[in-house]
Amino acid sequence: MTPSQSSANPGLEARLRQIGAERYHDKHPFHHLLHSGGCSIDQVRAWVVNRWYYQSRIPMKDAAFMSRVEDSALRRAWRSRIEDHDGTADRAGGIMRWLKLAEGVGLDPDYVASGRGVLPATRFAVDAYVRYVREEPLLAAVASSLTELFAPAIHEQRIAGLLKHYDFARPETIAYFQHRLSEAPKDVAFGLAWVLENARLPHEEEMALRALTFKTEVLWAQLDALWGAYVEPGRIPPGGWQPGEGLL
Amino acid sequence: MTPSQSSANPGLEARLRQIGAERYHDKHPFHHLLHSGGCSIDQVRAWVVNRWYYQSRIPMKDAAFMSRVEDSALRRAWRSRIEDHDGTADRAGGIMRWLKLAEGVGLDPDYVASGRGVLPATRFAVDAYVRYVREEPLLAAVASSLTELFAPAIHEQRIAGLLKHYDFARPETIAYFQHRLSEAPKDVAFGLAWVLENARLPHEEEMALRALTFKTEVLWAQLDALWGAYVEPGRIPPGGWQPGEGLL
Repeated sequence: MTPSQSSANPGLEARLRQIGAERYHDKHPFHHLLHSGGCSIDQVRAWVVNRWYYQSRIPMKDAAFMSRVEDSALRRAWRSRIEDHDGTADRAGGIMRWLKLAEGVGLDPDYVASGRGVLPATRFAVDAYVRYVREEPLLAAVASSLTELFAPAIHEQRIAGLLKHYDFARPETIAYFQHRLSEAPKDVAFGLAWVLENARLPHEEEMALRALTFKTEVLWAQLDALWGAYVEPGRIPPGGWQPGEGLL
Repeated sequence: MTPSQSSANPGLEARLRQIGAERYHDKHPFHHLLHSGGCSIDQVRAWVVNRWYYQSRIPMKDAAFMSRVEDSALRRAWRSRIEDHDGTADRAGGIMRWLKLAEGVGLDPDYVASGRGVLPATRFAVDAYVRYVREEPLLAAVASSLTELFAPAIHEQRIAGLLKHYDFARPETIAYFQHRLSEAPKDVAFGLAWVLENARLPHEEEMALRALTFKTEVLWAQLDALWGAYVEPGRIPPGGWQPGEGLL
């Protein structure tokens, strides 16, 4: 959690990292339940159905960002994020890998890909993120991506936790997380350097910190919605995925 | 100008092609002047400065499109357009090639890339196109890209005309157009098939036709602005590029 030695602005980097230490969704009890083997298969399925919506919007969010960038070199650097998710003609991307996970937990990937059953609160949170990146200043848009600073740790916990506790977890069903272990650090190294380079004035530093805080809220709200619907009180709102729906 | 034999909707395809026959900017007198060797070097420079703005916005337009596409496969098919313009780590894209043309005509590529000197009317037309793709229905957005149906013919005329009439024209300065000869047909084959597949109802066919008409207007308006500022009456508006500005 300490700034890298080459940081252009170690004070800001430390404050950004502190936001992760306090607010990143690895601290949410749903993740503890999931990684410790405490989730029922239906709770895992509800997570897969809902998190699909987030996954599916990430390339749209990144394209929205690129649509506002006048600098060809910055667009070029950013484009690999979309490739990582959408894949290429020869290589599956994160979207396909998430659908492999869906299959692995017994869900029909076409059902999951349809977006049916996604909790309204999940959609609202994710759509707020896409809207944010589409409309807020570029600095805020880039800073909001920096939750990836904290992602490798949670992915490692998740891979270990899923493999240890759940029958569905096999290399092919959890390949999504394995790939993110190498993709996220590459992306975030670029994004962090860009933010530290471009947030120089106090109001810019504040903007970057607020943007990262906002993003932690987007992630946290999704797990709160999942908890309310499928853990306690376990009251699934109208339109939310019902156990038994969309199975293979 | 006849529909391809495999057309999903030969009637619509013929009407789309008719729009090109009547309204594509290969019919604009500026292009006749340019391709026949009638342009002064300053008129060529004015064209390079202004057309830069269009080039520079194309990848932003394509990213705006992708930001609205929920289908990963459609985004993946569209992404190559951005790659063609922005290039990759190892391979220059269309943006770089346009700046080679700028150098070839004696302009400082940094000046051209700054967007200074672009005619306000050029900006308004191009920005209207980006706005259109960002906000109008996806069918209209795709249909507006179909001016590429008519692009190979104009690029061939341009390559031949520039090489014959202008000292600056060499393979490396006009590489942009050479690349478009292979890139545009690949893109437009996909876009045309998509439009023919998705414009089924009469109001959808009308939407596609209107979108392509709109795009021909975007292209034509840029040449009208160039003509007024640099040919006749040759009255450069405030802020427009002045001969002598931005030279190497």
